[in-house]
Amino acid sequence: MQIAKVRGTVVSTQKDPSLRGVKLLLLQLVDEEGQILPEYEVAADSVGAGVDEWVLISRGSAARQVLGNEQRPVDAAVVAIIDTVHVQDRVIYSKKDQYR
Amino acid sequence: MQIAKVRGTVVSTQKDPSLRGVKLLLLQLVDEEGQILPEYEVAADSVGAGVDEWVLISRGSAARQVLGNEQRPVDAAVVAIIDTVHVQDRVIYSKKDQYR
Amino acid sequence: MQIAKVRGTVVSTQKDPSLRGVKLLLLQLVDEEGQILPEYEVAADSVGAGVDEWVLISRGSAARQVLGNEQRPVDAAVVAIIDTVHVQDRVIYSKKDQYR
Amino acid sequence: MQIAKVRGTVVSTQKDPSLRGVKLLLLQLVDEEGQILPEYEVAADSVGAGVDEWVLISRGSAARQVLGNEQRPVDAAVVAIIDTVHVQDRVIYSKKDQYR
Amino acid sequence: MQIAKVRGTVVSTQKDPSLRGVKLLLLQLVDEEGQILPEYEVAADSVGAGVDEWVLISRGSAARQVLGNEQRPVDAAVVAIIDTVHVQDRVIYSKKDQYR
Repeated sequence: MQIAKVRGTVVSTQKDPSLRGVKLLLLQLVDEEGQILPEYEVAADSVGAGVDEWVLISRGSAARQVLGNEQRPVDAAVVAIIDTVHVQDRVIYSKKDQYR
Repeated sequence: MQIAKVRGTVVSTQKDPSLRGVKLLLLQLVDEEGQILPEYEVAADSVGAGVDEWVLISRGSAARQVLGNEQRPVDAAVVAIIDTVHVQDRVIYSKKDQYR
Repeated sequence: MQIAKVRGTVVSTQKDPSLRGVKLLLLQLVDEEGQILPEYEVAADSVGAGVDEWVLISRGSAARQVLGNEQRPVDAAVVAIIDTVHVQDRVIYSKKDQYR
Repeated sequence: MQIAKVRGTVVSTQKDPSLRGVKLLLLQLVDEEGQILPEYEVAADSVGAGVDEWVLISRGSAARQVLGNEQRPVDAAVVAIIDTVHVQDRVIYSKKDQYR
Repeated sequence: MQIAKVRGTVVSTQKDPSLRGVKLLLLQLVDEEGQILPEYEVAADSVGAGVDEWVLISRGSAARQVLGNEQRPVDAAVVAIIDTVHVQDRVIYSKKDQYR
């Protein structure tokens, strides 16, 4: 999985019928030091992530393991809202303290 | 999923039999600021996307979740025509206003 | 799918038994302007592509959707021989005219 | 598979229900000469890897072959704790000697 | 598939139980001109490849199509030992002549 920050949304009316009602978030990936990268992913969200939150995204066939996505043509899904990221003895991110 | 702009078409007569009647679009990927990248994808289209429209593409096994693609050797599919892309409070793209 | 140009062949006698009789082509990928890239792929061919022809390759599990490949450990397959590639109003490639 | 070094952990309470109880490690990839790369992966661990250990990670659908992960939306898993890495006649890494 | 050169081995005792008895080779990828790249892959071998030989590797779910790998969490497998690689009229590699 990769760490990503929720940045916005993508809206579409003309789409594969299975995507109706699916919330599509635009996320930018976060590097190993907590910096936002230009690389992004549009992912289906079913955990209720909000803008600026840090999340975990799964890509590939794993995205279809999320309940409801089994038959959807999605190759990325938000699977968790992150509370904390620890690297060695350092806290890179804490949702509570809003370090970033 | 990645955001991409429809740029053209690829035509083939000698191909895997399952690809007969499949429209193959050439798309260039769009970065997180709305710029067109050199990276491209040839994707099966079943949502009726036209040249210059912005779409969402799914890659990998997800492309075979689109109705009709189940048995086709396609690793990319257009799954949605994009109406709007929002990043923070900014509209990066709006089909209606044809910002681009 | 990616556009690629057939460049050569790979021959092997000691291999997974399921690969017996499979033609393995060495292909170099083509960029969005029709230039040959250093990136290559060795792909199973069942459409009868010849050296210098432009083809479409599918990668990942899609390669096993080609008839006969279902049980083979191949992660890339030639799925079409390209007739023409159009980008906007421009013909990037035409097999007939052998633009390249 | 790729060689990676365990660097830390990612904690989440609001997540896909199937991820409850799954230990998520933050790993940095190791290059062919044993150097730590900036590239990282957050992977499900079921072999009990600890910080600073070198492990093997599998990505994609392979991650769901680990017992217990079958239905989880994970695209990366720790599948082995590495004892030694040999390249030609050289030992790049040995857990016992803690070369690194 | 990609062309790779066998460089060494990875040994592990604490690992996913399904990996017992699996030989894990460290391979460095070879570019389209026959040069060794820094990019590597650790792959399960069942064709009996030896150090310095050139092989074909399959990645992703294809690696589980190799007999015995069906239930293993491996995302890369050696599927063939290469005899020759031809590009246009040139022999890039020949096992017999040990060009490299």
